[in-house]
Amino acid sequence: MLNRKGDIVASAVTNLDLHDIARAARTYGVRAVYIVTPLEDQKVLAERIVDHWVSGIGSEYNPKRREALELIRIQHSLEGVLTDMAQRGADTPRTVATTARSRNRGIDHLELKEKMATGDPYLLLLGTAWGLAEEIFDSADFILDPIKGICEYNHLSVRSAASILFDRLLGDRDS
Amino acid sequence: MLNRKGDIVASAVTNLDLHDIARAARTYGVRAVYIVTPLEDQKVLAERIVDHWVSGIGSEYNPKRREALELIRIQHSLEGVLTDMAQRGADTPRTVATTARSRNRGIDHLELKEKMATGDPYLLLLGTAWGLAEEIFDSADFILDPIKGICEYNHLSVRSAASILFDRLLGDRDS
Repeated sequence: MLNRKGDIVASAVTNLDLHDIARAARTYGVRAVYIVTPLEDQKVLAERIVDHWVSGIGSEYNPKRREALELIRIQHSLEGVLTDMAQRGADTPRTVATTARSRNRGIDHLELKEKMATGDPYLLLLGTAWGLAEEIFDSADFILDPIKGICEYNHLSVRSAASILFDRLLGDRDS
Repeated sequence: MLNRKGDIVASAVTNLDLHDIARAARTYGVRAVYIVTPLEDQKVLAERIVDHWVSGIGSEYNPKRREALELIRIQHSLEGVLTDMAQRGADTPRTVATTARSRNRGIDHLELKEKMATGDPYLLLLGTAWGLAEEIFDSADFILDPIKGICEYNHLSVRSAASILFDRLLGDRDS
């Protein structure tokens, strides 16, 4: 990720990122949610949260939460995500970088929804902090245009952005 | 709100509810975000969070966050919200109750989007915990159909639900 100064940093994993994104993913039929962090302590934290809800006390207290959090897989890098998908027998996904700032070669969500309708695997990349590092955009197959509200202000949380994108790309919204 | 057993309870105010919903509201041009809780300590907590970002250190650290959190107003009840709106010179809003379970007299988001396009004030009611109390549905002018993903699973966080509803009702999504 980038920090506010534009340096490449590893952002913290937030408990509610896991819950909100997993719950939205489960609702929209997303196959897996990868949490990517190179920080060992953040990986351990994320794994502890997931374990609590998937196999721990939380799974009995709230089975619906288990159904969501079992979609979560934790990896140290994007390469790790692609390797894990391959090991699980998935075809190599097209990668889609998301951003809050308009960029060259951006496609809009309707265009992407059409592409995804073929059923080929797509890996949607969302960042926290001040956004994804430049190298992610360089290597991504597609860059999705920013989610625009009705004004210039555009500072959604990654939880909100993921939820809106799932609804736009996977929802059956106009029926 | 209701708890898992169906009793009427006051749910806790979560820090990220304030941030995520205010940021999404600001992005989509929502005029105000009311946090309603009858619990004095929860009100104080919410006010402290908002003050930190609107007038405290947070407002200098992250002015964009201030622009969002200054939309937040804290009230003890729905009646308090309506009184506050009236005192601020707003016309009486139509109230729209939201739910994760299909109910009678529900309208879909496209129908509601059309009604809202007139510019009349609408007050969207979202619940935490196990949803809004029955009396809210009885008194609401409209009940919005649940957000449906592609499967039966439907357990979005209030943060995700608010973000998706703003995008569906206020977004310029199909352009």
